[in-house]
This record gives sequence, C-alpha cells and structure tokens, in this order.
Amino acid sequence: MKNTWSKEHEGISVLDCTIRDGGLVNDHLFGDNFVRAVYNCCVAAGVDYMEIGYKNAPEFFSPEKFGPWRFCREEDIRRIVGDNKTDLKLSCMIDAGKSNIFRDLLPKKDSVLEVVRIAFYAHQTDEAMDMIADAAEKGYDVWANMMAVTDLSDRVIDDALEAMVGTKSSTVTIVDSYGSLVPEQTEYLTKKYLNAARATGKTVAIHAHNNQQLAFANSIESIKAGAAKVDVTIGGLGRAAGNCPMELFLGFLNNPKYKLRPVYQCLEEQFIPLAQQIEWGPFPEYIITGQFNQHPRAGIAARESQMRNKFSAFYDSLAGGSGK
Amino acid sequence: MKNTWSKEHEGISVLDCTIRDGGLVNDHLFGDNFVRAVYNCCVAAGVDYMEIGYKNAPEFFSPEKFGPWRFCREEDIRRIVGDNKTDLKLSCMIDAGKSNIFRDLLPKKDSVLEVVRIAFYAHQTDEAMDMIADAAEKGYDVWANMMAVTDLSDRVIDDALEAMVGTKSSTVTIVDSYGSLVPEQTEYLTKKYLNAARATGKTVAIHAHNNQQLAFANSIESIKAGAAKVDVTIGGLGRAAGNCPMELFLGFLNNPKYKLRPVYQCLEEQFIPLAQQIEWGPFPEYIITGQFNQHPRAGIAARESQMRNKFSAFYDSLAGGSGK
Repeated sequence: MKNTWSKEHEGISVLDCTIRDGGLVNDHLFGDNFVRAVYNCCVAAGVDYMEIGYKNAPEFFSPEKFGPWRFCREEDIRRIVGDNKTDLKLSCMIDAGKSNIFRDLLPKKDSVLEVVRIAFYAHQTDEAMDMIADAAEKGYDVWANMMAVTDLSDRVIDDALEAMVGTKSSTVTIVDSYGSLVPEQTEYLTKKYLNAARATGKTVAIHAHNNQQLAFANSIESIKAGAAKVDVTIGGLGRAAGNCPMELFLGFLNNPKYKLRPVYQCLEEQFIPLAQQIEWGPFPEYIITGQFNQHPRAGIAARESQMRNKFSAFYDSLAGGSGK
Repeated sequence: MKNTWSKEHEGISVLDCTIRDGGLVNDHLFGDNFVRAVYNCCVAAGVDYMEIGYKNAPEFFSPEKFGPWRFCREEDIRRIVGDNKTDLKLSCMIDAGKSNIFRDLLPKKDSVLEVVRIAFYAHQTDEAMDMIADAAEKGYDVWANMMAVTDLSDRVIDDALEAMVGTKSSTVTIVDSYGSLVPEQTEYLTKKYLNAARATGKTVAIHAHNNQQLAFANSIESIKAGAAKVDVTIGGLGRAAGNCPMELFLGFLNNPKYKLRPVYQCLEEQFIPLAQQIEWGPFPEYIITGQFNQHPRAGIAARESQMRNKFSAFYDSLAGGSGK
C-alpha cells in the first residue's frame, strides 16, 4: 500500500520559517552561508514562502546580542537572495510590542519581501490591527498570527477572529505556541477559523509546535479540515520542541511540485553540524510544558540549568498538587 | 484551553512493549535492573499490559548472542516479577517461523504470563492460526498481530482478517511495521479491522512505529475510529524510529487511572543513560524508509555504516529513478 493522497492535497501552500522560528534558539545568529543554504533549499524544494526572520526594533533587541535575522534589514536580506528572481515568496514576521512597523517597514515596491506576518497576543489585538493596516497599505500580502491560541477561551478567540477578518489580511493563522493541541482540537479550531475567514475570502494557515510530536499530525488534521497554508521548518528547527518538519510534510503532500531530495541534502550538509551546537526537539521537558498547556520557557530554562534531564522534579514543578 | 478529553477515552487499554520491541535495538541484552525498572514503572503508571519479550526458539537465535528477553523463559521472567501480584498483565510475543510454541509455551496455569501475542506475516497465516489455537488451548488470552500491513493489498488483508476472526484470539492488531501509515490510512484500516472483528466480539489494537513522527497521532486516530488497545513504549524505545511514547499517550488519555510521573522518573533514571549506549528515534533515514513504505533495515544498515547521515545518497538509493 503506497501513499496516493496527492489529489487530495493540491492547493496547499507551504511556508518555511526555519530561520525565523529557529532563530529563537540561537538569537538569530545564523551565518550567511546557513541562511543561503536554507534559501536555496526552499527554492529547490519548491516551497511557496520563506520567512527569513523578524523585523523587530533595535530599541527592543540589541543588535550587539542578536543576529541580523531579528531585524531583517533590506540590505541583509538582499545579501542572501539578491533580487530573488525565483517563485519563492519572502516573508518577515513583525510582532506587536517589539517592533516599529510604521518606521521600519519599507513600501513593498522598495523591498524584496512580499509577505508580512503580524504576530500578536490576544491582548494586543488593537495594536495588531493597526500594524496589519500599515503593512497592507504599504502593499504587502499580510497574515494575522494570533499566538498562544490554547490559552484563550472560545469567546476571546471569536472576538479576535472578528477583528482579524475585518482587516485587509489575506490569512488568519492558528498558532499553537505551546505545542498543546491534539488533532481533535486542531480540527475544532480550524473549522472555527474557517467559519470566520470564509465570508471575507480569507484563508486559514497553521503554525504548529512539536512538544507532543504532533506538529506534523496537527498540520495534516488542519488541512483536512480546510486550512490552506502550513508552516514548516527544515528538520523541525524551531523554539524548544521545534515545528512541523518540512521533510515530513512535503512527503505527505506527495505533490510533484515539491521535491524532497533538496531537503535531505540540506539536512545532511547544514543541520548535522548545527545539531552539534544547538538543540531543539521534543525533549521530555517540552512534552511536559505542552501537556500542561504552558509556554516552553520553563522547559528551556530547565534544560539550560542543573535541572536538565530531571524530568520528575520538573514534572512536579508544573503539576504542583494537581497529581495529574 | 485545557485538554478535557478523558471522558472520551475511558475504556482504552495500554500495552507496554518497551522490552520486547526495544530489544530489537540491542539484541535483548537488557540488564535485570533495567527490566525491573520498566516493570515497576508499568505497575506505578497503571498501564494494563507489559510485553516482556519474545519467546523465540534457541535453534533460531543463539542464546550466546541474544539476551534472555528473546526467549522469555519462565525462570527469567519470575526473577524480575516474582509471582506478579499486581494488576499488570504480562505478555510475550511469539512469532511464526522463529519459534516452537508447541514445545516452549507452558500451560497458563504454570506461567506468570497471561497474554500471548502471535506475530506473523501474511504468508504465514496458516502457521499463525495453529499457534493461536495452541496458545488459546493452553489457557492464554491471545492476540493476533499480522505484521507489515502497509505491504498488503486490501484483498490480502481481508482474507487474513477472515482467518484471524475465526480463531480464539481476543484481539486483532493493526501493525504498522514500517511506520508508513498516515492518519487517514489508520482510520481506514481501523474500520476495516473493526468490521471484521465485531461480529465475533473481538477488539482491535494498534502497534505503531514512529518513522514519520506519527506513532502517537496514528494511535489517537485509531482509538477515535474504535480501536480499544494501544501499544506504547517508554521514551518511544523500539526498533529503528521506535514506537508510540508512553509519556505522550498516557497524557492524552488524561484518565486518572494512569499516572505520568513514574514514566518521567523512569525516563530520567533509566533512559538517559541508555541513550548513551544505543539509539532509536525518527532519524531521517527512518523517515525515508517510512515514506517509501519499506522495512527500516536499510536505514539501520546505513546508520551503522559510512552511509550514516548521508541522507541524500540514502534517499537516492531508495528513490531509484522515481524522482519522487
């Protein structure tokens, strides 16, 4: 029995965010050769979008400490991609509370970027709406990425969705920041997002984290429920447990427009050495934060301390007296 | 948003096969302390079954090379579990073509084992039916585990199911030996197995492999479709990419009868040291064999040779001229 699902999985777009989410592991201190290898891999694999970093403001992040992909200056991007004469669309993420989009985002005609993704927490919705308006006004395809959805009640999600679909964004993204979703919840949320998005012709995307080894499965579940865009990263590189691995998702899509071999080549040449320097993946600390529906920061801190691999004590620290 | 699915997931039984499937990584050369720790973990976690090894015949496997859990002699098991005065039911696996069940399996009244799982390939169905009859006759709860289901056509599966449901087995198991299933296929197969099993009051189980990081997701999908028993291993330990991790699956069930903390404690005390000696997990070589619906043996050989981490060449060796 071979997988023969390609007919069901046409029309899905794939966004690589290896540098953007992976940069959260190493303060975006990737060398140019690594970023260029990821870019070349994305072009060769045929993925639709590549998010090359954040456009954060230097008043929030010191350029002495953080690498160029925290800021995405036009000249840094062009040093890697030139004028990007390819079919790959380039994206950056701009998050509420840490950026100055009005000052720092160029008009699209002056940039090699085509997509801007506005990331925000629910309490920052008003600010995010202004940011979406600014990016759309400047000519970009804008996606609205409300983070940490598993922290929110249905009512808060519904209110935020109402705000998001009232903007000029093309896409609303389900963002499972904590890697807490299981497929049944993903299906439920996808239908909810889709109900809100459809009336205004918007599409739904999913950004999954791999705390419970479900990033790939939740991505599958979401497109089955109607999502049209999926975030992936090469080797699953991303904060803490990482994201949905590109090599898995492209294999599933089984669509001849995507090529797997360049992904394995990039893994071999770039990610085997990288894994000697930094770590990511569904380690037990991250399983535990995912199971308790918490931000992975406690897990990251544990793994960088004497608490590393002390799983039962770490479990106790989150379980408290719940005895879960 | 917390996970509140426990009501939906009562009535599921969990079988630990850490020693049995994990032993395929190290020729079943686990020390007694390790096996005892796994047993104690299973008891403390409240899982329903523990499969402690294979009962293979020494004429097929040299006792000089393979550890005791390849043979499951009664005295070896009792050295670990005594008379097993717990609620945990002990199981062994006996596979067609490599065993002498008629000679080597004691009557149940003389054994601490309660469950026997007969593993076989489709072409060994006749032999397996005789083995099931023998084990049932001797008083055991017998499960029928036809391996490598993704290699088989619907017609072959249907014929084998017809044979299996005609036996005195209590359970028919979906065995994804290659880790090739995606959730849609798992749902389809679960319904097929269930259709065959229901008429005779049998239940359906699933044994997943993690090549595509889908062992947990496929297990979830299978119980959603009606399976009642799920194989897990601590830390996912198992051949090649390993199996569905116990710590993930018990977290999902969210049923107070299961305890997570003992699993994390066992991971910390036993599996961190073990991972310094042997490897398992969804490495790219195993993703690739899973994607190509092949036994992982080529991936295992690659990782034990100069081909280790040469993902693109390994990909080419499986893709041939297919250009997939």
